[in-house]
Amino acid sequence: MLEPVKVGVLGLGTVGGGTVHVLQRNAKEIARRAGRGIVVSHACAKEINQTHPYSVDDIVLTEQLTDVVNHPQVDIVVELLGGTTIARDITLQAIANGKHVVTANKALIAAHGNEIFAAAQEKGVVIAFEAAVGGGIPVIKAVREGLAGNQIDWVAGIINGTSNFILTEMREKGSEFSDVLAQAQQLGYAEKDPTFDIEGIDAAHKLTILASIAFGIPLQFDKVYKEGITKITQEDVQYAEELGYRIKHLGITQRSEKGVEVRVHPTLISNKCLLANVEGVMNAVLVESDALGQSLYYGAGAGALPTGSAIVADLVDVTRTLTTDPGNRVPHLAFSRMP
Amino acid sequence: MLEPVKVGVLGLGTVGGGTVHVLQRNAKEIARRAGRGIVVSHACAKEINQTHPYSVDDIVLTEQLTDVVNHPQVDIVVELLGGTTIARDITLQAIANGKHVVTANKALIAAHGNEIFAAAQEKGVVIAFEAAVGGGIPVIKAVREGLAGNQIDWVAGIINGTSNFILTEMREKGSEFSDVLAQAQQLGYAEKDPTFDIEGIDAAHKLTILASIAFGIPLQFDKVYKEGITKITQEDVQYAEELGYRIKHLGITQRSEKGVEVRVHPTLISNKCLLANVEGVMNAVLVESDALGQSLYYGAGAGALPTGSAIVADLVDVTRTLTTDPGNRVPHLAFSRMP
Repeated sequence: MLEPVKVGVLGLGTVGGGTVHVLQRNAKEIARRAGRGIVVSHACAKEINQTHPYSVDDIVLTEQLTDVVNHPQVDIVVELLGGTTIARDITLQAIANGKHVVTANKALIAAHGNEIFAAAQEKGVVIAFEAAVGGGIPVIKAVREGLAGNQIDWVAGIINGTSNFILTEMREKGSEFSDVLAQAQQLGYAEKDPTFDIEGIDAAHKLTILASIAFGIPLQFDKVYKEGITKITQEDVQYAEELGYRIKHLGITQRSEKGVEVRVHPTLISNKCLLANVEGVMNAVLVESDALGQSLYYGAGAGALPTGSAIVADLVDVTRTLTTDPGNRVPHLAFSRMP
Repeated sequence: MLEPVKVGVLGLGTVGGGTVHVLQRNAKEIARRAGRGIVVSHACAKEINQTHPYSVDDIVLTEQLTDVVNHPQVDIVVELLGGTTIARDITLQAIANGKHVVTANKALIAAHGNEIFAAAQEKGVVIAFEAAVGGGIPVIKAVREGLAGNQIDWVAGIINGTSNFILTEMREKGSEFSDVLAQAQQLGYAEKDPTFDIEGIDAAHKLTILASIAFGIPLQFDKVYKEGITKITQEDVQYAEELGYRIKHLGITQRSEKGVEVRVHPTLISNKCLLANVEGVMNAVLVESDALGQSLYYGAGAGALPTGSAIVADLVDVTRTLTTDPGNRVPHLAFSRMP
């Protein structure tokens, strides 16, 4: 078997830790699926001496991002810094160094994806970003590859877990928006500054990416209509319920005569629809396409391990492109050797 | 751009027609996603002079299967014959000729997949079978690639649309099994001889494939516990409803201390679960895995265009492996050129 692929992780916070955890715990299965091992060789953390709930014995830890992206041994860089400034610079530097990049950074892809993909294409490297939309749900893969034969008519998704949690609690417990928000912050479902989630900005980042993949248009975050859930009252929720509907915060993109609509806002959905029954922090994306009709992809939209799951799936995909061995395609039955 | 990939279709029935239809209607999008065109160059039909609702002007029609699988111009063979005898022989012949094979034939893969994959591996060709499970839902891709970082705990799926349609009608209309079966036959949802669907054999074929992909075990159709829906009465359905449950015919495979369980049978599911709300001919597969937790994949499990959608997705995947051009990976935003 080939030598393991070496991964450099930028950021050992929640998602970085989840990624290392998944790679270590499922190392055997992952190697059988990818055709070779995948190991974290380098990682950049804010404080390299903090303790971790996973083994860092075989990882070179550093506080300098450039130590990772410039290291000749690193094959794939996993960018988990968040934000669009340092993350952009360091991603472009990784690409310039010929590294493939896996990222969970939806803001980065939505804002600078066009530039990053162009740079990657020029260098012949892959940028993988399954974790940027719908957490661990393989929805990028589903729309981009699974629906490759389809013209897509529209995509409608519950793609912000914080907003969905708040709306679910308001309906089930009868609480007011501000009380549930405070509770979500206590539970770690909402940030101290919750603006990105409750004002629809996070959902707009994700929808920008989905719209590009669905319709083959450039990423255009600034053109998305953005409305959050801050104006939803307990009365709204109750009226909806009485009429047989639920209020969900959706990201919607659809073909229209004038072009492609891209908008995030609260929506009334009949409680008979599957999408209306996606509750709490769960995410789901519903797609209408000409050949398949409606299809739905549901799962955990955030969290250390779910997001780690998507990052590792991307690492496996990239690993398969690193070899020209024709036997190293996706194994027919997922695993390359039977036990 | 490279010359189009040439596809030979074996069987121009419902699914074959759907495949040709999708390839023709969405030719432009498919070429942009695959990096090159995909055209049906040859097709084998029972009667080549029948009329078709799509253009056969550019297709060489024949009544001989070998005319297609032995033709040097054909890059990929799409096997839509059904059954496990002629389909097996012709698939092995296509492989021996160095052709990649895309198939919707779940019985063939469940019964002879181990042999077929071994032959394919030896010849360095790909066998793609997304259409064999869950119709157009990209569930093979999701489990095999999207969950590549996970240890899978269990898979539970509504994977036979006919059974789900019958159970849905029994609940919603209060009809008896035999009446709904007759209605399903009239609507074309059930075959004249409905044994495969209502006795759980079709579901067992599909579950055999899912179990192999989930757990890395060989295909073992004969070891599946098979129970259909023929013994379900209107009383059963009503009692379930009163208790807050629905009866669904599930395929379940899960890790246990003794190995892997693989079984299809009617099951009670709380009506609050998403799976209980998958109605009519729709299919859905719920997966529990260690990193992602629960994820669900929902859509049309049968039909000309949905199944055609899965076949074309496989054709696009195989097309990408036909070139060693590193630029011809999956395009970052699905389409290889922006408009």
